[in-house]
Amino acid sequence: MSDRVVAVVGATGAVGRTMRAILEARDFALGSLRLLASERSAGSVIETRWGEVEVEDLTLADPSGVDIALFSAGGDRSRAHAPRFADAGAVVIDNSSAFRMDPSVPLIVAGVNDAAVGAHRGIIANPNCTTMTLMMAAGPLHRAGGLRSMVATSYQSVSGSGQQGVVELVEQTDLLRPDLDALMTGGWTDPQPSLYSRPIGFNVLPLAGSVTDQGYTDEEWKLVNESRKILDLPGLHVEPTCVRVPVLVGHGVVASLRFERPIEPDEATEILDTAPGVQVWTDDVPTPLDSAGIDDVLVGRIRPTVGHPGGINLWVVGDNLRKGAALNAVQIAELL
Amino acid sequence: MSDRVVAVVGATGAVGRTMRAILEARDFALGSLRLLASERSAGSVIETRWGEVEVEDLTLADPSGVDIALFSAGGDRSRAHAPRFADAGAVVIDNSSAFRMDPSVPLIVAGVNDAAVGAHRGIIANPNCTTMTLMMAAGPLHRAGGLRSMVATSYQSVSGSGQQGVVELVEQTDLLRPDLDALMTGGWTDPQPSLYSRPIGFNVLPLAGSVTDQGYTDEEWKLVNESRKILDLPGLHVEPTCVRVPVLVGHGVVASLRFERPIEPDEATEILDTAPGVQVWTDDVPTPLDSAGIDDVLVGRIRPTVGHPGGINLWVVGDNLRKGAALNAVQIAELL
Repeated sequence: MSDRVVAVVGATGAVGRTMRAILEARDFALGSLRLLASERSAGSVIETRWGEVEVEDLTLADPSGVDIALFSAGGDRSRAHAPRFADAGAVVIDNSSAFRMDPSVPLIVAGVNDAAVGAHRGIIANPNCTTMTLMMAAGPLHRAGGLRSMVATSYQSVSGSGQQGVVELVEQTDLLRPDLDALMTGGWTDPQPSLYSRPIGFNVLPLAGSVTDQGYTDEEWKLVNESRKILDLPGLHVEPTCVRVPVLVGHGVVASLRFERPIEPDEATEILDTAPGVQVWTDDVPTPLDSAGIDDVLVGRIRPTVGHPGGINLWVVGDNLRKGAALNAVQIAELL
Repeated sequence: MSDRVVAVVGATGAVGRTMRAILEARDFALGSLRLLASERSAGSVIETRWGEVEVEDLTLADPSGVDIALFSAGGDRSRAHAPRFADAGAVVIDNSSAFRMDPSVPLIVAGVNDAAVGAHRGIIANPNCTTMTLMMAAGPLHRAGGLRSMVATSYQSVSGSGQQGVVELVEQTDLLRPDLDALMTGGWTDPQPSLYSRPIGFNVLPLAGSVTDQGYTDEEWKLVNESRKILDLPGLHVEPTCVRVPVLVGHGVVASLRFERPIEPDEATEILDTAPGVQVWTDDVPTPLDSAGIDDVLVGRIRPTVGHPGGINLWVVGDNLRKGAALNAVQIAELL
C-alpha cells in the first residue's frame, strides 16, 4: 500500500474531473487524495475511491506533504501556485502552458520521450492537447527515420475551449438547425457567438486560439515550439494551422511528414501499430467520435507522400481530455 | 438580343438548379433555354425568366441547334451524351470528372486560366469543387511567384456529396444531439451511416471520395492532377488530404504554398485582393457559412511560412455549389 499523497488542482474542471476518474480507473497507487479548486468550489465534498474528500481552496491550501500535484487550473494559477508546491517538495505535473517552454522543465508525452522526465526540478509540463496527439504518431516515426519537416493541420473539438465551447456549439446547432435553406444559401440567423469570433454550429472556424506573432495563434506556436522541444529537434520545420470544428470531443490532425531517410507506409504502419498508446486503423478511418472516451490515439490514412518521395501523410485523432490532457498527466505521475 | 440556345443538362439536380438561378441572376444573354434531365423528371414544366420550359428526356433529346450545353448530370451521362451534343455543334461545359484529364479538353477556372478556353474542340471541363476553390487563391499567387509545392488539406461540406449528404448530416445531428454525455465519453448511438462509412454528425470524416491508388481517394488525386493541369505545372508537388466536415455548404482548404521566388504576406494579400472573384478577409476569419450563397471565394489567415521562408500558409473557402460548380460553368459560357 502506497502512502503517496496526490493532489489534483483544478479538481472540479473538465480535465480535473477526468484526472480523478483516470486515477480511479487505473487504481493509481496513492495513500491519500487531496482535491483543490478555486474558492467558489471549496468546501464541497466529493466521493472518491479513496473515501470522501472535501475540496480545499487552492489559495489557502498548505502544500506540505504532497508528493505529486496534478495541476489543471489555468496558466495564471499554475504560475502562482505550482512553484509553492514544488518548493514544499511536491512534483508538480502541470497541464497549463505556463512552464512548457521553460528550459528547466521537462515537457513529456508519455510513451514518446519518457526519459526526459528524469531531469525535472520539481515541475514537469504536460503538452498542448493537439501537439500531444500529433506527437503520438510523429514521435515513433521520428525515432525511425529522423523527422525533418511537418505540415500540421488540425480539426479541434470545442471541448478544447472548455465547457463554454461545448455550450456554444450545442446552442448554435439548435438555433441554426431549423432553417437548412438559409444555411445553404445565406441569410442564416447570426447566432451572436460569444466565445468564438464566428459561429461554430454547422461551421468551421479556421482559427483556434488567439493570434499572436506573424498572424499565427498561440495554439499554432505551441505546435511548432512544443514539438521541437518534445522531439529535441530545435530546427524542425513546422507549418501549423489550427482549426476549430463542430465536434464535442476529439482533436484530429492531418500531418504531412518528411524524414532524413525514406519511410514507406508499410514500415510506418508497423512502427505505429507497436507504439504504446497508438492504434492503427486500416479497415476504416478513425474519427473524433471513435476517439472520445478512450485512452489510445487512433491513426489512419497512412500514405506515401506524392510530391516528394519517402515521406508519410497521415491522420491522427485522440481524446483531448484524456491522452490530450488528464491521461498523459497521470501517465507522467506513473513514470515517477 | 441574343439568339443563343443554352441547354442545362441535369437541370433538376442541386447544381443544375443553381445553374438556372445563376443564368437568371446574371441576365445571361440567351435566345432560348432548354432543360434536360433523366426520364423521371421529363415532362415537368419549370417557370424561368425566359418563359415556361418543359423538361426534356436527355436520352431522347435532339441536340441540334444547341449552342452551349451546361452538363451536370454525373460522369456516366456526360460520357454518353456530351460527345453527341458536341458533334451536333454545341460547346459542352461539363461539370463531371469524365473529361477533365483528357488532353484535348481545356480545364478552366474562370479568372485563373481563361486563355486556355480557346483550345477547346467542343468540350470544356469544369474542375472539381475543392480544386476550384484552392485554385482561386493558388492561381494568382503562382503567376506572381511560380508555385513549386502545395500541401492542401480540405474541410468539405456534405452538399459536395449531393442531397443525400445533406440528409445524412441532418438526420445524424438530430439522432446524436440528445445524448451529449455519450458524444463526449463514448457509447453514442451508432447512426448507421449509409452514404458515408462513418458518422458525420458532430464528427469529422478524414476521407472524402473513394480510395483508389496508394491509399489516396479520387478527390485527392483530383487535387493533384487537376491543379497541375489548370496551372500548366506537370511537375507541381501536391500533398492532398480530403476531409468531410459537418457543414452543409462551403468547402474550405488549408494550403501551405512554396514558390520559386519568396512571396511575403503583404504581397500575397495585395495580389489576392485584386484577383477576380476573391475577397481577402483580414479583420475576421471567413468561414463556410460566410461563403454559402455568394459568388466570391474568401481568403483569410495569410501568413508567412514558418519552416521554410518565402512561402505562404493560408485558408480559402468557397460555396461548392456556386464557384465550385454552377457559377464557374456559367462563367466559362460567358468567356465563349
